[in-house]
Amino acid sequence: MSTNGSTSQAPKYDVVGIGNAIVDVISNVDENFIHTHDLTKGAMTLIDAERASNLYEMMPPGLESSGGSAANTIAGVASFDRKVSYVGKVRDDQLGEVFAHDIRAAGVHYDLPPATQGPPTARCLIQVTPDAERTLNTFLGVSALLEPDDIDETLMADAEVVFCEGYLWDVESAKQAIRVAMDAAHRAGRIVSLTLSDSFCVERHRQEWLELIDERVDLLFGNEREVATLFEADDFDMNAARLAEIVDIGCITQSERGSTIVNGSDRIVIAPEPVPVAVDTTGAGDLYAAGFLAGFTGGADLGRSGRMASIAAAEAIGHIGARPSVPLTTLV
Amino acid sequence: MSTNGSTSQAPKYDVVGIGNAIVDVISNVDENFIHTHDLTKGAMTLIDAERASNLYEMMPPGLESSGGSAANTIAGVASFDRKVSYVGKVRDDQLGEVFAHDIRAAGVHYDLPPATQGPPTARCLIQVTPDAERTLNTFLGVSALLEPDDIDETLMADAEVVFCEGYLWDVESAKQAIRVAMDAAHRAGRIVSLTLSDSFCVERHRQEWLELIDERVDLLFGNEREVATLFEADDFDMNAARLAEIVDIGCITQSERGSTIVNGSDRIVIAPEPVPVAVDTTGAGDLYAAGFLAGFTGGADLGRSGRMASIAAAEAIGHIGARPSVPLTTLV
Repeated sequence: MSTNGSTSQAPKYDVVGIGNAIVDVISNVDENFIHTHDLTKGAMTLIDAERASNLYEMMPPGLESSGGSAANTIAGVASFDRKVSYVGKVRDDQLGEVFAHDIRAAGVHYDLPPATQGPPTARCLIQVTPDAERTLNTFLGVSALLEPDDIDETLMADAEVVFCEGYLWDVESAKQAIRVAMDAAHRAGRIVSLTLSDSFCVERHRQEWLELIDERVDLLFGNEREVATLFEADDFDMNAARLAEIVDIGCITQSERGSTIVNGSDRIVIAPEPVPVAVDTTGAGDLYAAGFLAGFTGGADLGRSGRMASIAAAEAIGHIGARPSVPLTTLV
Repeated sequence: MSTNGSTSQAPKYDVVGIGNAIVDVISNVDENFIHTHDLTKGAMTLIDAERASNLYEMMPPGLESSGGSAANTIAGVASFDRKVSYVGKVRDDQLGEVFAHDIRAAGVHYDLPPATQGPPTARCLIQVTPDAERTLNTFLGVSALLEPDDIDETLMADAEVVFCEGYLWDVESAKQAIRVAMDAAHRAGRIVSLTLSDSFCVERHRQEWLELIDERVDLLFGNEREVATLFEADDFDMNAARLAEIVDIGCITQSERGSTIVNGSDRIVIAPEPVPVAVDTTGAGDLYAAGFLAGFTGGADLGRSGRMASIAAAEAIGHIGARPSVPLTTLV
């Protein structure tokens, strides 16, 4: 849909993000580990508590680092010195404390109180192979219990862009929460953005998402495989044209080939930023969205916003972990 | 003392380590952060739960990684494919689970059950400044409650070297535990090793340590500042001579100038291993000890053991975190 709502006043935040609040556990493994433990390389697989416990036991020593796709994006936007807020649910446990500390320390407004009961804080067991590819195995824990009551509609009306992560679509109550958030944003004349998150995730929700995107999403992020899955077609140009019909702006990332921004009949080709040594692609897509949103909400044109997106993505690929390791303002 | 005991049989482990079982929280900060928050740069300061909570709140986003001085050393020895065991206390909480996972996944035998009550698992808030220096602030939590009952004397008799961390000396019950461990090792004819850990730690226990080292320690690790504090003198050669009088072997590290191994009247000078980019010195001393112990228990002479120590220390300095990021066997 287009952004026709009337904005009553200047928003308090540039972007508010909604997503699964997750702590990542990152280990370097060899290719063999992926095969031995039946992992789907490069994808995000949902796992239950028992599988999480078994898989963790088999993993090499890890590094713990706050993650969560939308949370990474929002931390990235904050790293460009923009005003941001985040909604995602943790428990009152040690990993929840780590998540809340890290997102606040990144300069993000975060005030959803930790749950005092239910499953523990979500964790994502990440295997990084020598080719820098990451394989995600997520135990959603309490983050899956996000519900409409957790959405502060005033907050949604107070951000220029409301950014939602597709991963939330795997749980019914979170779905409802997203719809509530998107509708509150549109009533206030704000922009609604969605990231497709993962091609398997797109596959699970294809028809529902086509409708959701057409009706409620203005600015969409996805990689070419996710977009191909959405339209069940491989032709890039045709997919771009179909995307242009249902969103105002579509950002399609193409790995080491850069990205293409789709806006009506315009196609803006963004060159990739060189990465000296690819270490870990965890967070690359999340920080691409961060760079774009920072540029876009700061008044940059689509080309400039795309450049900022490429630079932020490259930063994420250069180190272990999904959040920026240097202030992104220093790179643009 | 010298190792005159008679060994009844070949030990099951090359090294068993005893120390504070800690999870590190590592953040990059600027010099200003150190001054603003009254931190003692480069040292280890013990902090209570309240100070830990306040300091954490002020720290930038962090990376969590298993730490603890002796635990790092033991993980390092394991990374050289040697047989090792570890004793240190965690709680049955999420950080305790992380610690236990990481040390076992590193190939270390670790079977002390987590405490089911008392304070939480220890954490060390680490600030890394742009000069790669690390400043440690440790909340000991349940790790300080190590006591003689936690020492399995059979395990101590079953290792060629029993390696103890000086940091344990700050709590009375842990002190007793160390004495029990050292005595059990000597009764079985094993070698007792101690690391001085920190010059402020040496200052707190100077007289007691001089006696302990003279009576119970065969192999000592320390940096030149710690050794200077021990003998209250700055003359390196004189300190080396005094050290030679009270231990069989002394390894004195000298930062970027390498190290000197003291053995009777012999002085073996070890060149430093070049470090392409110094990122974080956390764990450098711990991994120096790891390299030396791996060489020494593997039958290498003192010079070769010292070289392995330098190589392991350099590896630790090249990345964030105190444990090896690659198998150390591949570097020697």
